[in-house]
Amino acid sequence: MTETFTLAVDAMGGDNAPDMVVAGVAIAAERHPSAKFLLVGDEARLAPLVARHKRAVASCTIRHAPDTIAGDLKPTQALRMRGASMRVAIDAVAAGEASGVVSAGNTGAMLALAKIFIKTLPGIDRPAMAAIGPSARGDVVMLDLGANVVCDSRNLVEFAVMGDVFARTVLGLTSPTIGLLNVGSEDLKGDERIRQAADVLRASYLAKQFHGFVEGHDIASGTTDVIVTDGFTGNVALKTAEGALKLIGGLLRQVFSSSWAARLGYLLARPGLERLREWLDPRRYNGAVMLGLNGVVVKSHGGTDADGFAHAIDVAMDMVVHRFNDRMREGLARIVSLQPGVGPKDAPGSGNSGPDTASGG
Amino acid sequence: MTETFTLAVDAMGGDNAPDMVVAGVAIAAERHPSAKFLLVGDEARLAPLVARHKRAVASCTIRHAPDTIAGDLKPTQALRMRGASMRVAIDAVAAGEASGVVSAGNTGAMLALAKIFIKTLPGIDRPAMAAIGPSARGDVVMLDLGANVVCDSRNLVEFAVMGDVFARTVLGLTSPTIGLLNVGSEDLKGDERIRQAADVLRASYLAKQFHGFVEGHDIASGTTDVIVTDGFTGNVALKTAEGALKLIGGLLRQVFSSSWAARLGYLLARPGLERLREWLDPRRYNGAVMLGLNGVVVKSHGGTDADGFAHAIDVAMDMVVHRFNDRMREGLARIVSLQPGVGPKDAPGSGNSGPDTASGG
Repeated sequence: MTETFTLAVDAMGGDNAPDMVVAGVAIAAERHPSAKFLLVGDEARLAPLVARHKRAVASCTIRHAPDTIAGDLKPTQALRMRGASMRVAIDAVAAGEASGVVSAGNTGAMLALAKIFIKTLPGIDRPAMAAIGPSARGDVVMLDLGANVVCDSRNLVEFAVMGDVFARTVLGLTSPTIGLLNVGSEDLKGDERIRQAADVLRASYLAKQFHGFVEGHDIASGTTDVIVTDGFTGNVALKTAEGALKLIGGLLRQVFSSSWAARLGYLLARPGLERLREWLDPRRYNGAVMLGLNGVVVKSHGGTDADGFAHAIDVAMDMVVHRFNDRMREGLARIVSLQPGVGPKDAPGSGNSGPDTASGG
Repeated sequence: MTETFTLAVDAMGGDNAPDMVVAGVAIAAERHPSAKFLLVGDEARLAPLVARHKRAVASCTIRHAPDTIAGDLKPTQALRMRGASMRVAIDAVAAGEASGVVSAGNTGAMLALAKIFIKTLPGIDRPAMAAIGPSARGDVVMLDLGANVVCDSRNLVEFAVMGDVFARTVLGLTSPTIGLLNVGSEDLKGDERIRQAADVLRASYLAKQFHGFVEGHDIASGTTDVIVTDGFTGNVALKTAEGALKLIGGLLRQVFSSSWAARLGYLLARPGLERLREWLDPRRYNGAVMLGLNGVVVKSHGGTDADGFAHAIDVAMDMVVHRFNDRMREGLARIVSLQPGVGPKDAPGSGNSGPDTASGG
């Protein structure tokens, strides 16, 4: 018998929720027959939507939550909304009813709620946000993407541990290479913080996978499978790349509609251009993960569609099925002794008694 | 009679120096009839090259320098090479013989030499590197691009002053808008440092031009004319965008050569695609400037060609002709009183007795 896993889904988060969410769950339910979904939100709206999707009916349980956290609500205000769908979904992970949670709602609120109620994994100073993106040499994992605006060397080392495990579990790589984002590849480049992190990684179990410093252009060229950086730089780099691609996409559309000849040219080159467009499709990369928590937490883009939401569920399922958090604990146990300033209170398994639902279900 | 300006040119810096440099100077000499060029380098190699370019002969003076700073030489070693072409060119600015210097050589060496011998403008804590790039709404100035890996709020405010004056003098804008790069546009986003810089700018003479926080995607969309950030983030953002564009360029070439139909498609859409390629041509944006020094300092990309080098000279000429440093002093005088922690020793005109060749010649 196949093991079953339960994911809590915030049915009310995102621009087109709950319709988009339920449709996404229905797609994911087909792909993951062993998964159960705890759909959290307005029961009166959810019941008829679920009923429409035959496959979803069998996999879904609806849990009522009267409120929805608005996209622009501040995290501090969101923390007070006990009846919010996102909160109830996160509570289900905290209580061990679900192995992970997926939401297309307010990112700041989700990070705050997850930190407080699902709690940080013992041994981790701060959780990070990671995502997968395309490069010339295959998919690349980048973190932190904005959870931590200021990071020290310990955080960067922990991000490397998280990124390694994430690339193994979700990309299926056996020995992902890791790069530390810097302003140059020479050992002396960057600030103290980043050089210290590099020293720790070079002396760690990740030494063989650690490529050293990489630069901005290495993200797109895929020099390493994992790119580690602080949340400020990672957020700016991700959005800068997205902005550059969007600009080019728009300009190409202009070019191909600028004359009848260009339109015909587009039609002739269309198969390749379509493949390129699909390859860059943001939906294919939907699902930023919050790593370093006592459970799997995946944030879908708010403006995504059902296909994109289903992809975010895929990411969560990969992490749950491949026991992301068990592997995280192994990595942390191996790196913790190398880190300066990590006291016993932070060491794995010594104090944090928060719920641990990493691979349960 | 037209005023003449002299630019010192490091003839030996860059991958294809000195041929590329002399050819670039010859192109620039045509465009700037009032300019004089002090070509610094190996006289025996330079003399026949200059002789080949009729127009260059009249505008150029050769100054012999026996040594060349290698591209991978450390700044500390470069500082000891008194006979290096880059050093002799920089000395000419320091001595008031030239208003500015252009080099395609070692960036780190140039920044170190310029800081020490041309010296920082009174009132400026640290010089910054700036460059111009394309956006959906016209050219955008971004700084710092890597001169300062760690920056405080004062540095960011001074970068805004420099960026404003640079956009006025080189892009010809009368009231450039300024954005501070952050992880979100809300006032509470980012770290203390960045919020403090925003507060100072909102209370300054730049208040009307200050747009507030911008994000990574705002660079390509051209939300503001000037993007201010620390050297670490700016360097990563620039290289990330360049990497993303290079990736797409390579993929498009693959698409258009993937079949006979696609090749024909390319030919049909070619005028528009060529315009797009020209618009994104890095040579058109060649010439990173080092701002905040007592003279105009322009760094050309090492791998550029004569057209690209001529463009770097154009940037230097624009700055010299439009009296960049005089305007900088005006801006600094207006902002200095608003800045916390700026003592009289840093105030303009009170102590720093370094040479001042900003608009001389």
